Amino acid sequence: MTLFDEGDLVPAAPSEPLVRVRLLFAYRGTRFKGAATTPGVRTVAGVLTGAIERVLQAPVRLVLAGRTDAGVHAWGQVASFDAPADAAGSLLPTLAARITKMVQPDIVVRAADQADPGFDARFSAVARSYRYSVLGTPVPDPFVTDTAWWVHAPLDLRAMQLACDAIIGTHDFASFCRAVERRTTERSVRSAEWIDLGEGRLRFDITASSYCQQMVRSLVGTMVDVGLGKRVAGEMAATLRARDRAFAGQVAPAHGLCLWHVQY
Amino acid sequence: MTLFDEGDLVPAAPSEPLVRVRLLFAYRGTRFKGAATTPGVRTVAGVLTGAIERVLQAPVRLVLAGRTDAGVHAWGQVASFDAPADAAGSLLPTLAARITKMVQPDIVVRAADQADPGFDARFSAVARSYRYSVLGTPVPDPFVTDTAWWVHAPLDLRAMQLACDAIIGTHDFASFCRAVERRTTERSVRSAEWIDLGEGRLRFDITASSYCQQMVRSLVGTMVDVGLGKRVAGEMAATLRARDRAFAGQVAPAHGLCLWHVQY
Repeated sequence: MTLFDEGDLVPAAPSEPLVRVRLLFAYRGTRFKGAATTPGVRTVAGVLTGAIERVLQAPVRLVLAGRTDAGVHAWGQVASFDAPADAAGSLLPTLAARITKMVQPDIVVRAADQADPGFDARFSAVARSYRYSVLGTPVPDPFVTDTAWWVHAPLDLRAMQLACDAIIGTHDFASFCRAVERRTTERSVRSAEWIDLGEGRLRFDITASSYCQQMVRSLVGTMVDVGLGKRVAGEMAATLRARDRAFAGQVAPAHGLCLWHVQY
Repeated sequence: MTLFDEGDLVPAAPSEPLVRVRLLFAYRGTRFKGAATTPGVRTVAGVLTGAIERVLQAPVRLVLAGRTDAGVHAWGQVASFDAPADAAGSLLPTLAARITKMVQPDIVVRAADQADPGFDARFSAVARSYRYSVLGTPVPDPFVTDTAWWVHAPLDLRAMQLACDAIIGTHDFASFCRAVERRTTERSVRSAEWIDLGEGRLRFDITASSYCQQMVRSLVGTMVDVGLGKRVAGEMAATLRARDRAFAGQVAPAHGLCLWHVQY
């Protein structure tokens, strides 16, 4: 069987039995132009698809749990795809290691398992957790240049925690979303908190069923403004109610964000 | 004043008063060919010297506390150099930030202070602490590719701690050193321990007055062999007594090592 470009993907012949495969993988987003497949561009899904096709000797179409922006990282990203049952049956036990060998060190496949035929990495997900790392120190740290947002000044963690409380629950997050016409911006945030890791290192953990575009980065940017004393924590609820992006603060840079876990 | 190449460095005119400056800096060693200045090669000291000379508009000669190998990182590296008193006097408060601006993100100057005239980053040091990071997990982690040694299998931490006890104190470390003729290989290890950071992450912390070449990496490699069950912990003392490099295990890769702190 020959390999196909993304645009030429053909479904396997009806006679060929398929199995649904679920991949759990991590990546350092620095050297990718985003996660989702884009023709002619080095994306996480593009590199991964190429490796899977070389291993399976069959075309595959990856479905990602989360389409992370350029520069965003992932520890617990999930993808699903169909593979010919014959090839998958014998390769599955070593599939994760084989793919990793071809795509490391930027991508690492943590696990590859057979899933139920109805499993869809995107639509079967019930919740996604993101982590955002902030460094509030006078000098940067060369070891987290690509994985944490360096804010030059100390941050008021208590004020940020207070601001954070306002976003938990079901709200219209239009103030914190890049507008996409005729799409709802109502989202349910199950949990959100700022954690003090010591020595100026802060981490924001958020879990929601789904997010609108740039929502986590916009929330983080606005809360960091609170931590810097540029805004007061009490404004957060009013900013949310305004449903107008002009009321929100800066958008935090992509490189501090990491898709941590997807729940099914 | 014109700038000079390393080979052309001239001492400041006797009439020009000098002050001794002490730099505390961190670097990610990945993109450098070692720390010490080597003509025609991108080294940490070379890049740093260039930036300092541009800021001070005077030639300087850096003395490093530790000459780390290619790929080795530092959090608490120290350098000393002489600067014209006039320039240093006005620039010192902003010197760290100015240099960092030119050399980040790979190098970050954490502090720049005036030191006693007799201060020498190398010879005034009384102890140096190194950290070595090991990842003993079945899959690698894309976020620590350049800063931790990925050992594919779980490690027996207790055995490694036991092996570690044998190296504390004053010993001839010839078994763990790259031989350099007519140089003593006796060293005093003040403290050494393996720390469990959870989820397969281990860290080795060692403090000694000084080290012979590749000593930390050779010790780590041999103790990791113990952790993998390839050697028994009790052999460590005998390996030390053998004073023969053939008795030691593998040399751990450079990228897991970090010069953590220099004590004066």
